[in-house]
Amino acid sequence: MKQVVAGVDIGGTNTIYGLVDKSGKVLSEDRILTRDYPDINDFVTALSGAISKLVKEDHDLIGIGIGAPNAHYYKGTIELAPNLPWKGIVPLAEMMKKKSKIPVVVTNDANAAAVGEMVFGGARDMKNFIVLTLGTGLGSGIVINGEVLYGHTAFAGELGHTTVVPGGRECGCGKKGCLETYASASGMVRTVLQILCDTKDESPLRDIAPSALTSKIVAEAASKKDTVAVKAMNYTAEMLGLAIVNSVVFSSPEAVFLFGGLTKAGDILFNPVREYVDKNVMPIFRGTVKILPSGISESNAAVLGAAALGWNELKKQ
Amino acid sequence: MKQVVAGVDIGGTNTIYGLVDKSGKVLSEDRILTRDYPDINDFVTALSGAISKLVKEDHDLIGIGIGAPNAHYYKGTIELAPNLPWKGIVPLAEMMKKKSKIPVVVTNDANAAAVGEMVFGGARDMKNFIVLTLGTGLGSGIVINGEVLYGHTAFAGELGHTTVVPGGRECGCGKKGCLETYASASGMVRTVLQILCDTKDESPLRDIAPSALTSKIVAEAASKKDTVAVKAMNYTAEMLGLAIVNSVVFSSPEAVFLFGGLTKAGDILFNPVREYVDKNVMPIFRGTVKILPSGISESNAAVLGAAALGWNELKKQ
Repeated sequence: MKQVVAGVDIGGTNTIYGLVDKSGKVLSEDRILTRDYPDINDFVTALSGAISKLVKEDHDLIGIGIGAPNAHYYKGTIELAPNLPWKGIVPLAEMMKKKSKIPVVVTNDANAAAVGEMVFGGARDMKNFIVLTLGTGLGSGIVINGEVLYGHTAFAGELGHTTVVPGGRECGCGKKGCLETYASASGMVRTVLQILCDTKDESPLRDIAPSALTSKIVAEAASKKDTVAVKAMNYTAEMLGLAIVNSVVFSSPEAVFLFGGLTKAGDILFNPVREYVDKNVMPIFRGTVKILPSGISESNAAVLGAAALGWNELKKQ
Repeated sequence: MKQVVAGVDIGGTNTIYGLVDKSGKVLSEDRILTRDYPDINDFVTALSGAISKLVKEDHDLIGIGIGAPNAHYYKGTIELAPNLPWKGIVPLAEMMKKKSKIPVVVTNDANAAAVGEMVFGGARDMKNFIVLTLGTGLGSGIVINGEVLYGHTAFAGELGHTTVVPGGRECGCGKKGCLETYASASGMVRTVLQILCDTKDESPLRDIAPSALTSKIVAEAASKKDTVAVKAMNYTAEMLGLAIVNSVVFSSPEAVFLFGGLTKAGDILFNPVREYVDKNVMPIFRGTVKILPSGISESNAAVLGAAALGWNELKKQ
């Protein structure tokens, strides 16, 4: 029998799930539509059934790890998630445990990404590191002494909502000037608009409606040396760099891993981030922190991170 | 026999030391002049001898805790401390252990203050909290899951060197815009100068030479409603508040303790800090973090913090 753990990533549209062995190999993967199950009981039944279907005769399913927005690791709940169909506080771990009779653990997606990095990715030999997930927003998972940082409330590690510009850009969280309004895919698009406003630089980006503009388009323009796109990329890198230097004085990580769509820009993003950090980090920390791309391939990342959470939890028991 | 631990606080001028029992009672305290011992060997001999003199017949000295600038907890060293007479890397814990034949542990003074708060102060029931020491600079000790945060390098918890204003005020660390250039006793004095420059407000502070201006004078003027001093106090509180809201999204502490000279201002400092945090913290953290004065009396704080470090370390063994 081959021991396997199920990894589940619950998103507003899709719930992706798969089986992962101890070496980090994704043996199978599939999805159900989250929105098809407005009743959480139906969702739990459907998800349990769907996972069971993946389990073959020679598989021994020993645990389930779940990544979800607004997940509360200590309580095993999803709480007041604006983008999911279930209102209020959902005791997801308990419900899934009842159905499946095996250990179930939940955390938010960025924390799952950090555990994925630690168990199967680039942080396998590290005890202190940070993962920044750069998508529409900026998520973060912080690992201290080999443990994900949850803090007093279980919600620690919300670096996307660090105030970087007091009174700055409006954020979805209700505050202003949060890091993710600058250093994220959507933040970079907002930065383009600022540069189009501030400068008279000619740019093909002036011909694209703001609602159609994406970080991918900006990255492509930057790679072709479009002035506006290059400026936007550099400013995004600076804001990321600022967040990193401030994280270094806080927890002194060995590495900061960057993950997600924005990192596909490659060197044109990583180089200015590294330069900023090298120049601006407090001198005693200079050269102590690596800025690395994630060691997890993006195609399986969500399932792998959630499964890593399951594997890691079983190891503790 | 009564078990006692020696607490030692090494400063540029004085080295204060004392014996502390398990309940946190300081049984005796004395000092030697750090500068009298330019050779570290002489210092170790003098300090060991001085501690021995405090130990009475019914005392059982079981450990020594030392707080010192630039201390490296993992290695037990003091490294390149600009304000101490000993150059290079000093293996202080090892040298003291050889002399005294009991466990010796060193850490920096802000971390010692955090351990003091946890063992003898206001954080006795807390697992996640932060201590900010507001003196000439801003020191910080961060406790996560009941352990001081040291990170990969052992130098974690340097919140005074968080960049709060990119390109802002020059800091002693070589960077610009560090938190401690705003939120500290010296930072508040610099803020007064900024306000005297920006406004035409009349103020008795205009009659004091900048080199003679202290945070105590500013706090007294603020308590008498001097406009410039009140503005300076509020700005200092805002910068402290900014640092606190950014710390909350990072590690979600149960409390932030403020310690040191600046906190003597009392409500005129604490109230605007609390207001800023309440207004600006990310909504999911609202109401989850207390802003408290230290529970350690300032007169014995240095010795008590260092001794707490010793007691705490012995508990682990």
